[in-house]
Amino acid sequence: MDTMYWRDNSLYLLDQTRLPFEVTYVKLETYEQVAEAIKTMKVRGAPAIGAAAAYGMVLGALKYSGGAREFEQYLRKVYETLKSTRPTAVNLFWALERMWMRFQKVKNGTTEDVFTGLLAEAYAIFNEDVELNKRIGKYGLDVVPDNATILTHCNAGTLATAGYGTALGVVRAAYDAGKLKRVFADETRPLLQGARLTAFELLEEGIDVTLICDNMAGYVMSLGLVDLVVVGADRVTANGDVANKIGTYSLAILAKEHGIPFYVAAPYSTIDLNLTSGHDIPIEERNPDEVRKIGDRLIAPPQVKVFNPAFDVTPAKYITGIITDRGIVRPPYRENIKKLFGGE
Amino acid sequence: MDTMYWRDNSLYLLDQTRLPFEVTYVKLETYEQVAEAIKTMKVRGAPAIGAAAAYGMVLGALKYSGGAREFEQYLRKVYETLKSTRPTAVNLFWALERMWMRFQKVKNGTTEDVFTGLLAEAYAIFNEDVELNKRIGKYGLDVVPDNATILTHCNAGTLATAGYGTALGVVRAAYDAGKLKRVFADETRPLLQGARLTAFELLEEGIDVTLICDNMAGYVMSLGLVDLVVVGADRVTANGDVANKIGTYSLAILAKEHGIPFYVAAPYSTIDLNLTSGHDIPIEERNPDEVRKIGDRLIAPPQVKVFNPAFDVTPAKYITGIITDRGIVRPPYRENIKKLFGGE
Repeated sequence: MDTMYWRDNSLYLLDQTRLPFEVTYVKLETYEQVAEAIKTMKVRGAPAIGAAAAYGMVLGALKYSGGAREFEQYLRKVYETLKSTRPTAVNLFWALERMWMRFQKVKNGTTEDVFTGLLAEAYAIFNEDVELNKRIGKYGLDVVPDNATILTHCNAGTLATAGYGTALGVVRAAYDAGKLKRVFADETRPLLQGARLTAFELLEEGIDVTLICDNMAGYVMSLGLVDLVVVGADRVTANGDVANKIGTYSLAILAKEHGIPFYVAAPYSTIDLNLTSGHDIPIEERNPDEVRKIGDRLIAPPQVKVFNPAFDVTPAKYITGIITDRGIVRPPYRENIKKLFGGE
Repeated sequence: MDTMYWRDNSLYLLDQTRLPFEVTYVKLETYEQVAEAIKTMKVRGAPAIGAAAAYGMVLGALKYSGGAREFEQYLRKVYETLKSTRPTAVNLFWALERMWMRFQKVKNGTTEDVFTGLLAEAYAIFNEDVELNKRIGKYGLDVVPDNATILTHCNAGTLATAGYGTALGVVRAAYDAGKLKRVFADETRPLLQGARLTAFELLEEGIDVTLICDNMAGYVMSLGLVDLVVVGADRVTANGDVANKIGTYSLAILAKEHGIPFYVAAPYSTIDLNLTSGHDIPIEERNPDEVRKIGDRLIAPPQVKVFNPAFDVTPAKYITGIITDRGIVRPPYRENIKKLFGGE
């Protein structure tokens, strides 16, 4: 199942808010529609958001009807609009930056050159991602014991990426290698990406998956049922702190308490060397109705106050290793992230 | 709002599955109806289940139409039926045992004597509970700092008891004493007692309550927003281990990791001196559809496997103190529980 594809000068995006009950692609023809689709989480997952935004830049360029002189200024507005859709995942900014740099190279060519250059870069961002994920899966295999039970949170799978997945890339690699016994999937309130997307995706592959509520993970660990935890990431800072879906931090503490290895799986584009620690990562707060409602059904008194952070930060000290496309990074993170990913 | 009341030889039970959107009382006229209401969680919360079962015994006696000789055998069947409704909360067994002992005292009297005796005992079980909860609140006040933010899980309030509540009894006492700043309420999947009942109950009292998803508790703690955690209990064993709503165990670990005091509030009827540790508590597993659905709306693929334990066990080592109607029990629990509650 494709998370998105480009056809006839439009971006077709799998509407993930309707999964698992409807498989519908929305056709996006303007960058504003792409921005809206990211905000409303029709597309979600750090790498998938990056790829969608890249295609958004292409649509922005394609629909431009003004004079040549104002084009760069206009495209910068497109860039800023797409950049402002969600604050936490760094892949969005990384992909837009890559598109902008490509634009700088082609901007003095013909309109056709600009469009072709931007589309080629968006394709590359999208297509490279699958390869990165497969490398993550391959490296991750080293830390998966035989007959392993893996617990995961949210969805860091095909649906969060261009394909194969990061955390679920490790799951897929383990499955293909005959090392996987089963997966526990946290349902992941409020938007239920675990129940709706991870369960759906793993069932499609025939992988043995058991759905639990988020508050059951500790108990499942205490029963000795979990061999390792693998989750995705929305941003990794230079010291190894990780922003990921709300609940990841709790899970990391629970894993530590039970002596269970806790791994994060993410491509290089998720690593943000500009931030020295997780304290600097902006945490998005979303609409309170995501908690008060499930779908459009109210489950709490409508007037109740809500706190709805979409992410949390897991300090590096709780993380056994970060499985990247360049290998597994282990503590001391600052030093080892620098070795693999550079930075000052 | 009354959790239940007795009128015209019937038990009127607030149907908690319909809260907070409908305040409906169901009229129960047979003990089988009471058993069904407990199983389907129209009534829930350890003390409330105990009281409902006691009234169920009265209804059983009231509806008896057989011969005098078989009455005791029949009433034992009523007792066993009610006892088998839910396995984890000990208050159910405690209340039924109390009813049975009362029956032993009156069984040689007239039919009228038996009925009057049983009804008096059920009334007593129900009415004493409010008083116990107020004492819990009073003792609990000692551990609540000024301007406190309390985090709670599930619903251990008026709706879980005959009134006032255990964990929410502490919250109410703190509020009345001017010591309460605010409450964070975990929504408590799968049945959302926090979102539906605790939020509702505290809003009714004008107490400042903020609803969060269960997986947000750790992050809220990391922000320094929580002064103490107070939860209820379904069973406390002789060594201080506590069975309570699924998710309590995770919360206790998170509190420990953040250096936040973790208290359990429960009346003496929740303490089970027959069990030496939490390992011996049977943990109820409920219908997988509670996780696959919210209300009657499917949120996950219908064929996905589910693990749905209704409770977990929090080992005594994570518990700062157990606030009872006889005072606060602190470690060493085995010794101090024995001092307050007897046992061998």
